[in-house]
Formats: sequence, structure tokens, C-alpha cells
Amino acid sequence: MAIAFESLYSDIAGRNGKLVAGKKIIRTPALLPVINPHLPLVTPKEMQQMGVEALITNAYIFSQSQQYREQALEKGLHKVLDFDGVIMTDSGSFQLSVYGEVAITNIETLTFQRDIGSDIWVPLDIPTSPQSDYTTTERELAITMERLKEAKRVFGADAPIAGPVQGGIYTDLRERAGKEVTDLNFSFCPIGAVVPLMESYRYKDLVQVVLAAKRTLSRAACVHLFGAGHPSMFALATAMGCDLFDSAAYALYAKEGRYLTTHGSFKLDELAELPCACAVCRSHTADEIRTAPDRVRLLALHNLAVTLAEIARIRQAIVDGTLWELADERCRTHPQLLSGYRELLKNTGSLESHDRVSKRRFFYRGNESCARTEIARFQQMLVRLCLGKDVLVACDGRIRDGYDTVLLFKPPFGPYPPELCETFPIGQSEIPDWDDAMVLQGCKGIRALSASHPKSSISVSGMHQWMAILHGECSDIIEVID
Amino acid sequence: MAIAFESLYSDIAGRNGKLVAGKKIIRTPALLPVINPHLPLVTPKEMQQMGVEALITNAYIFSQSQQYREQALEKGLHKVLDFDGVIMTDSGSFQLSVYGEVAITNIETLTFQRDIGSDIWVPLDIPTSPQSDYTTTERELAITMERLKEAKRVFGADAPIAGPVQGGIYTDLRERAGKEVTDLNFSFCPIGAVVPLMESYRYKDLVQVVLAAKRTLSRAACVHLFGAGHPSMFALATAMGCDLFDSAAYALYAKEGRYLTTHGSFKLDELAELPCACAVCRSHTADEIRTAPDRVRLLALHNLAVTLAEIARIRQAIVDGTLWELADERCRTHPQLLSGYRELLKNTGSLESHDRVSKRRFFYRGNESCARTEIARFQQMLVRLCLGKDVLVACDGRIRDGYDTVLLFKPPFGPYPPELCETFPIGQSEIPDWDDAMVLQGCKGIRALSASHPKSSISVSGMHQWMAILHGECSDIIEVID
Repeated sequence: MAIAFESLYSDIAGRNGKLVAGKKIIRTPALLPVINPHLPLVTPKEMQQMGVEALITNAYIFSQSQQYREQALEKGLHKVLDFDGVIMTDSGSFQLSVYGEVAITNIETLTFQRDIGSDIWVPLDIPTSPQSDYTTTERELAITMERLKEAKRVFGADAPIAGPVQGGIYTDLRERAGKEVTDLNFSFCPIGAVVPLMESYRYKDLVQVVLAAKRTLSRAACVHLFGAGHPSMFALATAMGCDLFDSAAYALYAKEGRYLTTHGSFKLDELAELPCACAVCRSHTADEIRTAPDRVRLLALHNLAVTLAEIARIRQAIVDGTLWELADERCRTHPQLLSGYRELLKNTGSLESHDRVSKRRFFYRGNESCARTEIARFQQMLVRLCLGKDVLVACDGRIRDGYDTVLLFKPPFGPYPPELCETFPIGQSEIPDWDDAMVLQGCKGIRALSASHPKSSISVSGMHQWMAILHGECSDIIEVID
Repeated sequence: MAIAFESLYSDIAGRNGKLVAGKKIIRTPALLPVINPHLPLVTPKEMQQMGVEALITNAYIFSQSQQYREQALEKGLHKVLDFDGVIMTDSGSFQLSVYGEVAITNIETLTFQRDIGSDIWVPLDIPTSPQSDYTTTERELAITMERLKEAKRVFGADAPIAGPVQGGIYTDLRERAGKEVTDLNFSFCPIGAVVPLMESYRYKDLVQVVLAAKRTLSRAACVHLFGAGHPSMFALATAMGCDLFDSAAYALYAKEGRYLTTHGSFKLDELAELPCACAVCRSHTADEIRTAPDRVRLLALHNLAVTLAEIARIRQAIVDGTLWELADERCRTHPQLLSGYRELLKNTGSLESHDRVSKRRFFYRGNESCARTEIARFQQMLVRLCLGKDVLVACDGRIRDGYDTVLLFKPPFGPYPPELCETFPIGQSEIPDWDDAMVLQGCKGIRALSASHPKSSISVSGMHQWMAILHGECSDIIEVID
């Protein structure tokens, strides 16, 4: 297979992996800067020194370009761009989505991509707008699938061709597309037509669309979220299992005088300070950048540094098992990202089954933390506990005699046997002073314990000022001591 | 006056200001790197290029140093350190707190600080440990106050002397200290003996101590949180009205192979990636730093870049009026910081009265946002609305006839007249899909409206699935329509 993907570490549905394209290997997650040969701001070589291993460029622009078409065909993309890493080419589908039409066919664009030496070729899929109705979306999806089959037929099973997943805003169509692309043996699967969602901050819809596609895509497939995006949303996308991002933002924002950060974007003109540790920001004042002759390039370098640092941050979080913390941090930077994050948390059930067993730590960050996969997993595992007939859950740690089994209690997880006090998550979790949300979640753990041990009778002691919550959740199944 | 402070912008109790020491001016908030002349890692000149305007060094170390004592007396501190910005000197109180004793008197250390040309001198106050009982704390506070009076007496009212606030863990003693230091006309007031709290992550206690001191300190005084700290806690401290920080962390951590970030610290040995945009991290891999001969210096440069970027981030947040967002972001990085943040939010009442009227925006970031000053202010302002006899709060925006006054509803703020739809906070606030916490807070706004308009009868429509919350909060004072 020309394109293969391997996951090395994982956290939630996110993974640190290796994408193999031909003889080249890149690490994921990765951000592929978009290169427009007509408008170079930062050279591919400079990007490589900053840690970039792969680029994306638009083959359609090359094919229509008087200046670059022949060069690309003769010397190849890598020589033209002076870059020996992985180069992915987009087909013209982007122009299709923006202008409504494009003067190239599926086979023509793939042929051209092959001939200029692209490492990953993208067919001419149809990016269906989120505004389109079901019938249109279904029809365009069928055309996309035909073009994917055609690509396999004409170029062979081993050609390094991407299998984009379309389906618009309809989760059932996204599931169908994911399944069909998998059945066709595509190992590199971009999720397309999401840029309009991200531009409108429709992150709740984005989560639904991505989760739908991931439900049927193979976990061995590398997933590229096409056109994503702003660095503040990478963590959320990675948590759902997206591996690659591409963005022209670093350059477009620079030209528009916009300054990227992981907590949002600013107009350079509005900045009194430069809230960033990068080389540009630690050696200039905001005024100095504004009046610098190479202002646009300085901004582009800053934007790129911030974006690549975020990729590094995500990879480290996956190694540590702290991706939930990072997603939680980033998703509070905009209320619509918070909506997307809360939508993701509703899907903990399906995310939990593939989450890793042990992590560096569990830090409680607010009541959203109660919906995390580690808690769902813990409360499911309670069924494995062997309990005697009379069980005491000593919530304040004060053990009493007269019980067959005594358990301790740690919100938001719930009851646990003392022997588990040093294993994950009990031993490596840190919580602030108890709050209503975590106590309620812990009480759900008591309920789960009761449900899975019908022969035991459970008493609970030491809840003190949290009695009302305990009663509300558990009064029908437990006995309260003092 | 030798030391003066002026606030230029403010947000919550935080301010961007100017600290004048003699003829020199520095911008605040500011981080003063601690310089140990025996162990230079990054030179003061290099720091100046990175944006540092002031340093702190320990006069006691200088006075005991064979190598530096005479140099400092002859040439002056600024020449010895090759730095023309503001230099503050610590007295030896730090050594006192660590070793229990110090071989210098209050007047000796102040004389020495004067003679070496320090810009801000610190008396020999007694940093009372948080473990000390009330009697000891009170006694040591009295000694500290005597030394402060002695300093004024001996060196004059215009000497650039700091007035440290002690009082241990006892908020009444901290309030007393704040008042006495203010009565003595100190304009530069460090809050001392908090390092043990921060080292133990006792952020809830830290908040209580700082708020207590700030209750009686003049708002015209510049407040230095002595020994603070880790960059993840600067925003919380600034929100409470701290203006200066000092830290040796950038160097100590570097020597111990520890890597600072605003979301916590890492051991360099544990890092697979370098999650940072700074010059060091964008030009090395983690392995390359580990094996670099100048590894400690590289780490120190990274640590300093991260710390100074955070100061810039705080200043920009104050300009924009988004300091709550930044404090919220940073305080979720550790569960004990979250405890501290929640403690601060309990004090919204006192913070609200000095908060600014209008901000760039209000982003809802989670249920903690319901306790923010802007909401308390808004709900207090409701008393100013002129209402007719029959009032309708149309929560879903559907206006009905037959009412003297119709108001709209936006959680977490509550009811508002259509004319205010474009003013702060209604017009510049963004919220995710409604959640229980914000709806409850909005209903408290309805209650506040009712309480302040006893002649009006209030009906509420359009709450739909939020009826239970509305009933729970307001059923005794409103009529529900459909």
C-alpha cells in the first residue's frame, strides 16, 4: 500500500502516529502549511527548520499557472518548492466549493498530480455545503464515490490516493461515506466540506459530522480534517481522531494584519502587547512590528510558530494522557467551541471503549470533567468488584466495624476499595474542594455499584453537607448511616 | 515621594500601571527576575532585550559576598550587574524565613541597600510562616511594623523603601497590616510570606490572604506579591490587584532540568516534544536540548520567554477587559488553582464595585462565569430600569401584546430592555447553548428585577424546557405564561 498509518500512542480517540507515504514518513498529528507558489512568505525550507514535515499545495493552481505548470511537470513539485518532505496536492475541489465550477476532470487532476510527483493525491470530490438539502447532498456524495472508484480503477490500488468523506451536514450520509471509503480500502481519508462550519463557529455541528465519519472509518485510516484550521480547535479535532490539519491561515492572517494565538485572533493594530513567547514577539514591541517593512513576514513567522507549538503541545498531551485537559483548555476560548466540547462529552460512551487504561494523571477542571471517559470507564469497572453482603461506603474516610466490605469514596469517580487507592484513576487524580457536580457524579457511581451487585446491601456514611445530593440520586437503593 | 504608582487601565482589581522609582519608570504588571550574581545564566542585558525593565537581587547575599561586596559599594549595583533599569533589593528576610536567622539588622541592611544604589529597598520584615499560631504571628507582625517605622524615621519619608505586609495566615492580621502600612504612607507594599502557600498549592488560602491585605491597602499603592511565582498563577494574582512578581524559578528550574509552561512544569527528561513557540523550542528537538552542552542556559531562556510572554498576555487582557477569561484559563491548569479561583469568585461582591464599566466582550467559559463581576453589576443595575405595571419577560424572544413593558432575556445576565441590546454586556456577550447554571443565574436576575420594582407584576414566557429552574428560583414572585 502506498499510504499506511500506524498509531503509536493514543488518548481518547486521538493518536500520535506515523504516516507513511511511499518511502517518506511523517509524524502525526501534523499541520500541513498551505503553500501558494505565487505568494511565498515563508519558504518550505524555513518551515522544515521549524519542524514542518509535510506541505499541501493546490494542484489546480499549478495546472492553471503559466509560470509553474511546465516547471512542475519537468522538474517535479519537490524541486520547484525546494522541499524534500511529503507534499500533498489538493485537486481543485476547493475551487469547486468556492466558485461552483472548475475546469478540470477527476482523471485529469489526478494525472497531473501524479505527473508532478505529488506524494498524496486527492481526487476531485464534491464538497457539499452545509446549506444543501438531503437530496442534493446524497446525489453529490454518490458522484464523489464514483470518482473515488474511478480513481482506484484507473490508477490502481497502490496509488497514493486520498479517499475523501463527504455527506454534508447529514450524519447518516457521513456514516455511509465513511463505510464506503473504508470498503474501497482507502487508508488516507480526509473529511471534507467542513470549512464553512468552522468559519461560522458551528463547532457543535462539526463534532457531530466528524464523530459520524469516524464511526464507520477504520481506525487504521489516517484522517485529515480538510481546511482545519485555527489552532484553538486542533485539540478538539484530535480528541475525535483527526490526525492531519492543513491551513493557509498563517499566511492569509499575516496579509490581513491578523495575529494568531491559541486563545483567539487579534488585529495587529489592536494589540498593545505581544502575548507570545516566539522569537518575533520576544524581540519586537507591537509598535515595532506594525511599522516594520517586513511586517507581513514577521506575522507569518509568528503565526506559524504558534501553530506548530500547538501541534507539539497536542503530541505531548497524547503521550501523557492529558488530551482531555488540553481540549478542555482550548474549548473554553470561544463559547461555540465550548458548545462543541459539550457535544463531544455527550459521546463519552462511544469514546470510552477505545480510550487507554492508564494515564499520567486526572486533573479535575470544572464540572465538564464529570463526563470524561475515565469516569465512565471506572464506573463500568465497578461491576468487577467482589462485595460481601453488607457494604459500607465511608465517604469521609471514617471506617466503621460491622460490615463485610468497606469502600472509600472519591468524587467524581465514586466508591472504591482501599486496595485501588494507588492505581489509576484514584491514585493519580487530583480534585479541588468538592462541588455539587462531582459529588452527584460520584453518587452515580454508588448507584452503578448497587445495580451491579444486587445481592449486596449498601450503606453510605460521612456525606455531611452533601446529603441532599446523595438522597436525590440514591435514596431508593442505599441506607444512610448518620 | 520616591516611589509612586499610577494605574492606566484596569480590569477586575488588576491594573496596567506605571511604577516610578526615582527617575526610572517601569510598566506593570511586571516580572522581576531574581539575579544571583554568583550564578549568572542569562545576563541582565539579555533580559532587557527580552522586555525586562526591572530586576530583584538579594542585598544580603551581596553584603556577605567576598567577591561582590566591595565592588557593589564602590561601583554600585547597576554597574556590577551592567543593568540600567530598576533594581530592587531584598533585605535578608528571605534567608530569615529559610534559615531562621540572619546576621544583619534592619538598619544595617537598609544602609547597605542605599549605599549600593538600589532603586527600591526592602526592610528586614519577618515573614511569618503559615504554620505559626496567632500569638506568634501577631508578635512578629508588631516587630515588622516597628522596623518599618524605624526605617521611615532613620531614612526619611522620601526614601524608596517598601512597606511589606505580613500577618501570616490570619486575614484579620493581614487587614491590620495593610491598614498600618497605608497609615505610614508606604506607596510600595509587598505581600510577604506567601511562598510556603504557593509551594504547597494552597491557592485558596493565598486568595484569602491577598484579598485581606488588599481590603485595607490603598489602591494607589503598588503591590508586589513576594516570591510569586509560577506563571500559571500570575493572572489570578493580578485579578486581585497584585502588580509585581519576582521569581528565581526561571533559573532554578533550568538547573534542575525543569521546563516551565503556563499549564504546568515538566521534567525535560520526560518530554517527547517541546510544547512552546519560543526561539529555543522552535529550533531544537527535546533530545537536542537534553544533549546540548548549554542545556541549562537554553532551558533558562525558554523559561524566561514563557514567563515574559505571560506578563504580556496579562497586560493585553487588562487592556481588552478579558482578565476574567485569562484567570479562568490559567486556574483550570491545576485543581488547587481552581479552588483558588472559586474562592475569588465568592468575593465578586467586593470586586464588582471597582470593576470597569465596559469591556471588549464577555465570553461564557463554563458555570464559574455565572459568578463574574459583570453579571453582579448588571443585576444591580436592573434597579435603574423604569418599568410599567405589567411586565413581560419574553425568554424566547417572542413578544406578546398587552403588557406595559416587554423585556428580553439573556442568561446568565437575565432580563433586559431591547434598547440595551447593543450595550455592554448584552451586546458584546457570547454564550454557548443554554445550560442549567446560566439559566439559574438569569432567573436570579428576574428575582432581582422583581425585588427592585415592587409596584410591577412580572410575567415570564418562553422558558420551555427550563421551566423547572424558573419555578425553583422565581415561582413566588412571577406569573408564568404558557
